[in-house]
Amino acid sequence: MNFELTKGFLASLRTAIEKNDEKFVLENIVDLHPADIAEVLDELTTEEGKQLFQQFNEEKAADVLVELEEDVREKFLASLSSKEIAEQFIDNLESDDAADVIGELPEELKEEVISHLEDVDQASDIVDLLNYEEGTAGALMGKEMIAVKENWTIMRCTKEMRKQAEEIDFVYTVYVVTDKEKLIGTLSLKRMLLTPAKSKITDIYNSEVISIRATAKDEEVAQIMQKYDLIALPVIDELGRLIGRITIDDVVDVIQEESEKDYQMASGITEDVESSDKVWVLTRARLPWLLIGLLGGVFGAQVISLYETDLGIHPEMAFFIPLIAAMGGNVGVQSSAIIVQGLANNSLGFAGILTRLYKEFLVGLLNGLICSALILMYNMVFCDSMELSYTVSLALLAVIIFAALFGTFIPLILDKYKVDPALATGPFITTMNDILGLFIYFYIGSLMY
Amino acid sequence: MNFELTKGFLASLRTAIEKNDEKFVLENIVDLHPADIAEVLDELTTEEGKQLFQQFNEEKAADVLVELEEDVREKFLASLSSKEIAEQFIDNLESDDAADVIGELPEELKEEVISHLEDVDQASDIVDLLNYEEGTAGALMGKEMIAVKENWTIMRCTKEMRKQAEEIDFVYTVYVVTDKEKLIGTLSLKRMLLTPAKSKITDIYNSEVISIRATAKDEEVAQIMQKYDLIALPVIDELGRLIGRITIDDVVDVIQEESEKDYQMASGITEDVESSDKVWVLTRARLPWLLIGLLGGVFGAQVISLYETDLGIHPEMAFFIPLIAAMGGNVGVQSSAIIVQGLANNSLGFAGILTRLYKEFLVGLLNGLICSALILMYNMVFCDSMELSYTVSLALLAVIIFAALFGTFIPLILDKYKVDPALATGPFITTMNDILGLFIYFYIGSLMY
Repeated sequence: MNFELTKGFLASLRTAIEKNDEKFVLENIVDLHPADIAEVLDELTTEEGKQLFQQFNEEKAADVLVELEEDVREKFLASLSSKEIAEQFIDNLESDDAADVIGELPEELKEEVISHLEDVDQASDIVDLLNYEEGTAGALMGKEMIAVKENWTIMRCTKEMRKQAEEIDFVYTVYVVTDKEKLIGTLSLKRMLLTPAKSKITDIYNSEVISIRATAKDEEVAQIMQKYDLIALPVIDELGRLIGRITIDDVVDVIQEESEKDYQMASGITEDVESSDKVWVLTRARLPWLLIGLLGGVFGAQVISLYETDLGIHPEMAFFIPLIAAMGGNVGVQSSAIIVQGLANNSLGFAGILTRLYKEFLVGLLNGLICSALILMYNMVFCDSMELSYTVSLALLAVIIFAALFGTFIPLILDKYKVDPALATGPFITTMNDILGLFIYFYIGSLMY
Repeated sequence: MNFELTKGFLASLRTAIEKNDEKFVLENIVDLHPADIAEVLDELTTEEGKQLFQQFNEEKAADVLVELEEDVREKFLASLSSKEIAEQFIDNLESDDAADVIGELPEELKEEVISHLEDVDQASDIVDLLNYEEGTAGALMGKEMIAVKENWTIMRCTKEMRKQAEEIDFVYTVYVVTDKEKLIGTLSLKRMLLTPAKSKITDIYNSEVISIRATAKDEEVAQIMQKYDLIALPVIDELGRLIGRITIDDVVDVIQEESEKDYQMASGITEDVESSDKVWVLTRARLPWLLIGLLGGVFGAQVISLYETDLGIHPEMAFFIPLIAAMGGNVGVQSSAIIVQGLANNSLGFAGILTRLYKEFLVGLLNGLICSALILMYNMVFCDSMELSYTVSLALLAVIIFAALFGTFIPLILDKYKVDPALATGPFITTMNDILGLFIYFYIGSLMY
């Protein structure tokens, strides 16, 4: 049952498309899951894709469209008129997907597409959704949901649900609202199954409902849904009125994007890139971090040049430059990463900044002592200069402790001033620690000799 | 409605517990969501927690137990007898949560707890679930689900569902099976609502059902559920029989853990640690990476020491050691990170390893030329030695290209041999690139001078 895209299948499909072999497409493609079809289309050219799309009914075509990679979808839609986009695709999408697709279109096309929509309610839902800022709960939510009034009976409720359900693919939760649309609770399908048809909703609904304001950030949405294991989260306006719902599948993507962003930051990549992107996109995404590294290297060179005369006399001082610089950078990234993850998971607890720094000092001290002792033993055996041996170990200890403290302090401060703390795992901290490390090393060296 | 834990609230609660103030607990704690109560308990001592637990009914207590941090739960359970654990907690949990909790217990306690379970079906479900290897679909699944036979009518189906639903908190999907329990499809609640009661299931069920073998890895579970936007995934045995279901909330945790693992690897942390862990746990998690860095530093020192005489004559060679080492490391991590993420998301496509390396060569060449040109301009102005200027730029270009190629090659090879490719973003690649970079730099330098 589960589909796997192979090179061979792709080759046969291309031949079939070229030969206009509708039978192959009907037998092998049309019944696949939209996500699988999209996977196939992501590998085809826009022209080939267009030919395939003609074989799908409108509903399938719309479902496939949503699953495409953004750049593939963009190219495909660019080859259609605004009327085609509206009638063949947007009219068949759920409001949140529809708003997402329209949101990606060029500014001048957006209004044109909306003006061609046949379903007026759908159009007004979409216009409404487009008003919410990207990255907020409002921009994530959809309008399709089942809401019942508190004073209805189960029987009326079932009837209304049947009516509403025709428009909705999947019933996540039944929401209970007041006459004025204020969200007051949920109704479980199980409870409905087990209760006599004449009971009133108000007597059986569950008043403990977790909701979110439309203006909340999507990180908050993800945290709440994850914490409370929700598969749908109702969205309310300033007056507490139910205006939409967010489903877990959209939030899984948010969660993944969030972690990927932090991961890319820690790896020194500034944009969301994939290995299939163009060479210059990949280059551009990586250059900023390299330039900062370059600048750091130049500063490092200047620090070392201060000690040029010493180096002429004791060239062996240069041996351990990479060690000191690398260890400073590594320890800094480790410390920052733990804080960044704690902030992302909301798991830092209540300890104040001083407590944290003290603990980090202890971790740094312990790691520093172990590493310094090891390198001292090594140098005792392999290094001729006592001065150098002591310098390296002392400098290493100092660098590890300082880097640990910096690595903890910087993301906490960034977070306090509402800057993304993941920045700290990136260029700045590493470069700073590199330079600081060199400074400590040569300063101690100049004292020793 | 949404709860936020504050320092003030925690202080009042502690006072209330000390004074045995049951009223405070009843008013402020008991009605909270289990996840919120767990958040509170994570901050309390085991003794305080035990006192709180006495105020909850058994179902609430069980729900809270599951939400606790693993170490808090471990301590709490250690203070109970196996009979208490079984009757007060395990009997009230869903099978997957129950198996998880029992799985965490010390070996000798596991059987004792199971022998005390009152519900025989529950006990056999748990024993069954405990048999699956951790990290597989079987270990993630739960046994609670609604399954109907294909030859039933809607009416019989509704009746059976009512019976089954009493045991189940939330109905995700209704599965359709043959007489021999083979999974053949799903039944949407919407379809049930809209179909006459005498229709047969076999005429209205949806035969397109995505399922997974119990032996599949949890990464695969996550990929499938994410790709197809599923909120529940049925699990089958070798004979295609329905044996359980996995729900999205458990998979969200898998997705998050996967990305966190990669992130920690890239940041040089070897275990899953949090900033609240003990100092020695944090130290231990970070030490391996530091030791590898140390070893790399020692090798680096040896590479440089080969050129000690040159360095005595041209100490300015030392200035750019940190720059060369850092850039090699950075470029390597960037290249690896893009591959690692592509592998994790299954988005690498079909390009072969040679195509990939060629592309990476172009990216490296472009970045290398830009960085080399910039550093050359800098050195033209600020550096007295033409030889050094050329050496630095040439070496930098070579290092960036080599590091980009290594960074792409290593994770692909690791993946081919079923080793976690994220290893490549960690210690090895950075250290290797550091050393390689130094070698290239000094070799070119020795040719230049």
